[in-house]
Amino acid sequence: MPADTVTYILELLGILAFATSGALLAIRCGFDVVGIVVLAETALGGGVLRDVVIGATPPAAFRDPLYLVIPLAAAVVTFFFHPQITRLGTAVLVFDAGGLGLYTVTGTLKALDADLGVLQAAILGVTTAVGGGVLRDVLARQTPELFKVDTVIYASPAALGAIIVAVAYSIASPTPVLAVAAAFFVVAFRLVALWRGWHAPSAR
Amino acid sequence: MPADTVTYILELLGILAFATSGALLAIRCGFDVVGIVVLAETALGGGVLRDVVIGATPPAAFRDPLYLVIPLAAAVVTFFFHPQITRLGTAVLVFDAGGLGLYTVTGTLKALDADLGVLQAAILGVTTAVGGGVLRDVLARQTPELFKVDTVIYASPAALGAIIVAVAYSIASPTPVLAVAAAFFVVAFRLVALWRGWHAPSAR
Amino acid sequence: MPADTVTYILELLGILAFATSGALLAIRCGFDVVGIVVLAETALGGGVLRDVVIGATPPAAFRDPLYLVIPLAAAVVTFFFHPQITRLGTAVLVFDAGGLGLYTVTGTLKALDADLGVLQAAILGVTTAVGGGVLRDVLARQTPELFKVDTVIYASPAALGAIIVAVAYSIASPTPVLAVAAAFFVVAFRLVALWRGWHAPSAR
Repeated sequence: MPADTVTYILELLGILAFATSGALLAIRCGFDVVGIVVLAETALGGGVLRDVVIGATPPAAFRDPLYLVIPLAAAVVTFFFHPQITRLGTAVLVFDAGGLGLYTVTGTLKALDADLGVLQAAILGVTTAVGGGVLRDVLARQTPELFKVDTVIYASPAALGAIIVAVAYSIASPTPVLAVAAAFFVVAFRLVALWRGWHAPSAR
Repeated sequence: MPADTVTYILELLGILAFATSGALLAIRCGFDVVGIVVLAETALGGGVLRDVVIGATPPAAFRDPLYLVIPLAAAVVTFFFHPQITRLGTAVLVFDAGGLGLYTVTGTLKALDADLGVLQAAILGVTTAVGGGVLRDVLARQTPELFKVDTVIYASPAALGAIIVAVAYSIASPTPVLAVAAAFFVVAFRLVALWRGWHAPSAR
Repeated sequence: MPADTVTYILELLGILAFATSGALLAIRCGFDVVGIVVLAETALGGGVLRDVVIGATPPAAFRDPLYLVIPLAAAVVTFFFHPQITRLGTAVLVFDAGGLGLYTVTGTLKALDADLGVLQAAILGVTTAVGGGVLRDVLARQTPELFKVDTVIYASPAALGAIIVAVAYSIASPTPVLAVAAAFFVVAFRLVALWRGWHAPSAR
């Protein structure tokens, strides 16, 4: 399989995980099927925000119908089988970590392509990866998971990965190997953090 | 009157209804005049979001001063006469249904014009119609009406209307009759749903 | 110092104040360091929104790294020294008033430059100045300060200043003196309002 196809499939799996967590939250909040679909579609929020910021409109999420169909499918499946999917908790977390790693790297690369500086590209890359989750929580009137003291680190692995990619690409010619390595680093960091229960520091 | 003038007047009436419901919510929340104006202006939120997504900037809402003036006027009138306007509840609901139908159809058509696919155009059409209401509720720290199990269906009529328009326009040459019929269908569906108390399903 | 340099330094001081108030709110909400950084970066929200609306992408906040670095620095300093910074309350309020005045005027001028009408430019100017604060409050799940009956007027001085600038520039050729005077007027109005405890009216 060519590298683009692999990236594309991984991207869709990441969206599937983000969308499933949105749909599950909607069900926990007691929302109707519209709320379930909308919170599933927030999976695309980070990418849409990135594309709107760099002026790449219409956003990628509106160019390929699969990007919108996968959250719709996740909403329907979660609607009927949420007890079973809740029991798949670990699998959802692993796919979600995959989405985190992939979106961080592709978001940072897309921002560099749009001629953003190193720091700006890294911040937009992290925003791509975590923006959908924040939108999901705001729409559901929950405190963003991302900010909570008692949740396992999520943005920090993404931030490290984004900085690695942005710095490396700004001092050397682009190489897919580095992008893949950085994505794996983010995923591994997030999974180890989940396993060991690492938290981000908070102010005294 | 030419068709464009009729559409324009109906659009302004729709904004008036959306803006009035924003202003009334602000008063129920005990906000000051700034909150009343801001929540009234969220009437334009769905259209601004649509235009930003398809790259049609500045958005239509910032090209014609009347789009901004009508929510301002709705805020002022609601500020002074909210008890009377609350008693006009049914009229506001009818105008709001009109706005829902019109924004669904014009949003879907504008998205198709921007070369979006059928599904993407339908989803952006629905977003145009319901986006302002979600923004209004988020700013007022309310659970979005759109997601609540005990509210009458709102997004579903819009979704059906948007799909009809998007599919029809993609298989045949555009005809204003179909657009008008689809808008009437959304309005009628919403009004019958209100009358009969139809709800969207929620997960067990 | 040339006028542009003065404007630039004042702009950075305004961002510093907005970012500090975001970081302090995150600490009061008990968020971790990620929440502190994100709420500090909301300082840029109004400007990003303005640039996305007028199609000036990527937004100014993503062109100059200092715009992103200052909120990062504010987050770090507030993380360690928030008790001391809380005691600097008045200084933060004064800088914040400075940011309010400056962003109102530069936002309105940038909107006029993008060929927006008088009213539209004034509304976008106010949005530039107050948008970041509303985003900050929404992300922190607080009722927007801007809408509260018991907070001192904030948007009203900005609205007056924006209207003065927009009207004056549309009837006469641009003059920096007027822009500076309007910014000072907003700052002075806000500071006097704080001192005298002025509130915006609310509906009966």
